[in-house]
Amino acid sequence: MELTVYLAGQIHDNWREQVVQKAKERNLPLKFVAPQTDHERSDNIGEDILGKQPNNLFKDDAASSINNFRTQVLMQKADVVIALFGEKYKQWNTAMDASTALALGKPTIIVRPESLIHPLKELSNKANVTVETIDQAIDVLAYIYE
Amino acid sequence: MELTVYLAGQIHDNWREQVVQKAKERNLPLKFVAPQTDHERSDNIGEDILGKQPNNLFKDDAASSINNFRTQVLMQKADVVIALFGEKYKQWNTAMDASTALALGKPTIIVRPESLIHPLKELSNKANVTVETIDQAIDVLAYIYE
Amino acid sequence: MELTVYLAGQIHDNWREQVVQKAKERNLPLKFVAPQTDHERSDNIGEDILGKQPNNLFKDDAASSINNFRTQVLMQKADVVIALFGEKYKQWNTAMDASTALALGKPTIIVRPESLIHPLKELSNKANVTVETIDQAIDVLAYIYE
Amino acid sequence: MELTVYLAGQIHDNWREQVVQKAKERNLPLKFVAPQTDHERSDNIGEDILGKQPNNLFKDDAASSINNFRTQVLMQKADVVIALFGEKYKQWNTAMDASTALALGKPTIIVRPESLIHPLKELSNKANVTVETIDQAIDVLAYIYE
Amino acid sequence: MELTVYLAGQIHDNWREQVVQKAKERNLPLKFVAPQTDHERSDNIGEDILGKQPNNLFKDDAASSINNFRTQVLMQKADVVIALFGEKYKQWNTAMDASTALALGKPTIIVRPESLIHPLKELSNKANVTVETIDQAIDVLAYIYE
Amino acid sequence: MELTVYLAGQIHDNWREQVVQKAKERNLPLKFVAPQTDHERSDNIGEDILGKQPNNLFKDDAASSINNFRTQVLMQKADVVIALFGEKYKQWNTAMDASTALALGKPTIIVRPESLIHPLKELSNKANVTVETIDQAIDVLAYIYE
Amino acid sequence: MELTVYLAGQIHDNWREQVVQKAKERNLPLKFVAPQTDHERSDNIGEDILGKQPNNLFKDDAASSINNFRTQVLMQKADVVIALFGEKYKQWNTAMDASTALALGKPTIIVRPESLIHPLKELSNKANVTVETIDQAIDVLAYIYE
Amino acid sequence: MELTVYLAGQIHDNWREQVVQKAKERNLPLKFVAPQTDHERSDNIGEDILGKQPNNLFKDDAASSINNFRTQVLMQKADVVIALFGEKYKQWNTAMDASTALALGKPTIIVRPESLIHPLKELSNKANVTVETIDQAIDVLAYIYE
Repeated sequence: MELTVYLAGQIHDNWREQVVQKAKERNLPLKFVAPQTDHERSDNIGEDILGKQPNNLFKDDAASSINNFRTQVLMQKADVVIALFGEKYKQWNTAMDASTALALGKPTIIVRPESLIHPLKELSNKANVTVETIDQAIDVLAYIYE
Repeated sequence: MELTVYLAGQIHDNWREQVVQKAKERNLPLKFVAPQTDHERSDNIGEDILGKQPNNLFKDDAASSINNFRTQVLMQKADVVIALFGEKYKQWNTAMDASTALALGKPTIIVRPESLIHPLKELSNKANVTVETIDQAIDVLAYIYE
Repeated sequence: MELTVYLAGQIHDNWREQVVQKAKERNLPLKFVAPQTDHERSDNIGEDILGKQPNNLFKDDAASSINNFRTQVLMQKADVVIALFGEKYKQWNTAMDASTALALGKPTIIVRPESLIHPLKELSNKANVTVETIDQAIDVLAYIYE
Repeated sequence: MELTVYLAGQIHDNWREQVVQKAKERNLPLKFVAPQTDHERSDNIGEDILGKQPNNLFKDDAASSINNFRTQVLMQKADVVIALFGEKYKQWNTAMDASTALALGKPTIIVRPESLIHPLKELSNKANVTVETIDQAIDVLAYIYE
Repeated sequence: MELTVYLAGQIHDNWREQVVQKAKERNLPLKFVAPQTDHERSDNIGEDILGKQPNNLFKDDAASSINNFRTQVLMQKADVVIALFGEKYKQWNTAMDASTALALGKPTIIVRPESLIHPLKELSNKANVTVETIDQAIDVLAYIYE
Repeated sequence: MELTVYLAGQIHDNWREQVVQKAKERNLPLKFVAPQTDHERSDNIGEDILGKQPNNLFKDDAASSINNFRTQVLMQKADVVIALFGEKYKQWNTAMDASTALALGKPTIIVRPESLIHPLKELSNKANVTVETIDQAIDVLAYIYE
Repeated sequence: MELTVYLAGQIHDNWREQVVQKAKERNLPLKFVAPQTDHERSDNIGEDILGKQPNNLFKDDAASSINNFRTQVLMQKADVVIALFGEKYKQWNTAMDASTALALGKPTIIVRPESLIHPLKELSNKANVTVETIDQAIDVLAYIYE
Repeated sequence: MELTVYLAGQIHDNWREQVVQKAKERNLPLKFVAPQTDHERSDNIGEDILGKQPNNLFKDDAASSINNFRTQVLMQKADVVIALFGEKYKQWNTAMDASTALALGKPTIIVRPESLIHPLKELSNKANVTVETIDQAIDVLAYIYE
């Protein structure tokens, strides 16, 4: 039984590649989808497609409409969502994606460092499982196939 | 037609009182509900009811289970959600409440300062309306009754 | 049993007042809600609240976000939707409101002149009832109370 | 990941063939579905199957019941909806299909010329993305696969 | 706690008056709603409002669109549905109303004579409770208040 | 695009075989599912599996629980429902299946002889399309693929 | 803001009266609903209304259809569910009611003694809040009004 | 038509292997999924992945969060649920899984010994079919393919 996993979260390091690599090493029949991880492309996609916008507010809104479109398409295809929070940045997209996934009944794993226990406590309590490392998240996915 | 408004967002200043006061001044038939705004009580509610927990992780989880219970009860009663983001703090609860409200089809207004345009762009794009001040949010509510 | 009726449709004449007046004359326990019917206010509400926008596209988008917010709040309160199409204008808002109401399971009456039979045929087929005059629409509402 | 795209909109020119051709040129794994695009067949399908109807109203209603049946089947299979508005015609079917898609949570792109910004502003605000050309719509679809 | 009860079923005798009377005698806080029970009015309502139709098929379709509108409005207000089947007639409306109520999650009681056990067996199995007399149906409603 | 069609309706003649045969002749990519069409087996399935029941009421209820289970499994897999009414029998199962399909948003075709126009008028009005012959129903399905 | 609370759980002691009394002492604006708590009446309600059944299996099934009807009506009216597990009995009704409430999105509190931590761990993990005493459950309800 | 069957219930004997074996012998195109059936692994999975927890309460909660995650993923993939109750143990997980499946509209078969008729009567009444043996459950599944 192949499952599709949406990888929500920061796009500032290569954590998604690690997830994909580790799942491959363990031969898990998982397919991964994700938001645009090229940060510059993600920020510019509105103007790249729609042309120059009047100012940064509208540039951002144009980009986010297309990023949200992409996320909605891919999350609807996902059986499981993993949302990773890092120590930096606001990461409200990650919180938005995890909350939306939970409201839609998508089984959701949150990965967050110990330092974020307090600010993430309500979201973490709502999620199915909260772990601290990518390896633990993979362990949870692997458990489905035991 | 009386409407119930859930006021999601930070609990570090008196913005909710301002909303209530301004709505009253304009004679809008609105009823407001909100999360626990006594920060200490909100953080301690788990141990206050369930007793001492083993460590901060479990103290936080106990508190958040009761805070989430409260939010779920009140948001289900709400016709409209206002989510205010301030310049400080992670505010993932606010992002979670706004995203959940949107996923449930609750008409939602986001209030955020200009400085947060970029990090909030995807959530802002999903919301019905995004404004910068409490007065503008009240203007939007008042518009329903024109 | 009081029912709330959302009156979708053009805002260029006083048809809503006729509906309200006729319902009153027949003592029907109906409460009516509607979009902003002051055309200028409806077009300017975005700039009225959010301030000057860069150009007409963004002025329109700002206004429509607030108009859509209003419609969503009021339509969720409605038990029945009446959507009136006149002979002029594009009236895509009316088509949008009627289609949304039908997709949400709201019982919906379409009022349209004979001249619009052909272009409205698919929407008319989807609606619960299609009539040609306001009096007929009131007759249908009155029938609930017989 | 193959996606199915429903192409709502006018049936008076060959825009759908352009979409299909451009998607093919860019090797996008997309499958397209659409309403009946033979205008005469679409108008006559009720009488073609059910026989002569008493007058044009009933001819139109018979046709639209079968066209709506077809649309409902195909839109339920679609992952994404593109709704194109041209400068002529009422196009209420297009507004109906786009609104229904949005109410059902289907990610939706609207394509409309600059001249229609004002009359389409509320529907455009509700859609995920609004663009002006078919190439831009294809760009948005292609972005899912980057 | 007042409950609203929709009384689906044949309109050829006075069974609804019996239900209302018996509920009143037992002081049950129930409000009853029902389809049009004047058979002739129910059959003619389409032509009464929309005018003469081309033939009986279209007369029936016009009437049924308005009857279905009424039923949809009232059933959405109902907390409970009672569907009574008599020994005569096709009563497909009754089967339709009971099935729709069950699909919508409305708690539903079927009243049917012993002679209809076999033809109604699948619908009866789906209903919450099946009884043979109006008194038994009232007993079930009264049990809610014990 | 292969579609699955649930064939609801009477099990007293070979109409389903005709549907399957005609679809095959026209090379339509349709897969058909249906209730148990061996009437005796359908009536006895409760006792066949669960053993002798106390009387006919309980024999019927046991059978119908298993027939309803089968229908629910197969209808959830169906993209389209065809419900055929014949001139004889109560056929409340058919009315139940068609109504349930419509309440679940399944595109539904009703096939009924002219003699049943009046008693089926409300259900027919709710269905997407109503036709009089199997050939017409196949025509409607074929139209999806034009 | 008055809330309705469904009290699921064992009917072998007076715990519901304690809940009602304590809520009253604290002036909480709560309305309580519950299953039939007269154990004998609950077991006999099927035969009381429908008459003598062939054996205990059918007596039980008749009773449970009416008990389930009552529960469905009242739980749909409830804003919150409290499910109490005692140390004795199977209490599968309680587990069923709590699970149904959670699947329907009703905010749910589980009350269970320490001795049941292990067997109730999955249900407890799914519930919003789990406590050990009635006083704690009331504390959670009271927290909504702080 | 291949169907996926979720096998809820006790993990203390080899009943799932019997189901799989019997389905294979009868060439039924069924795929089976289930909870973790290694009891020790199921109880320890929380600590196995997340590390030592403060006490048994938290060990159990950690395990159950991961078990619930697994169940949610697999049940969403299931077309049918079989829930088997044995004579020993509390089996609240089984009651929770069966109730959740029913609330989600999954066709559900309960298998229980005669001795459990009374305590399971309400859940049994809600299920589609209740049988006493694994062979009978397989008979019901096989009936879908007749």
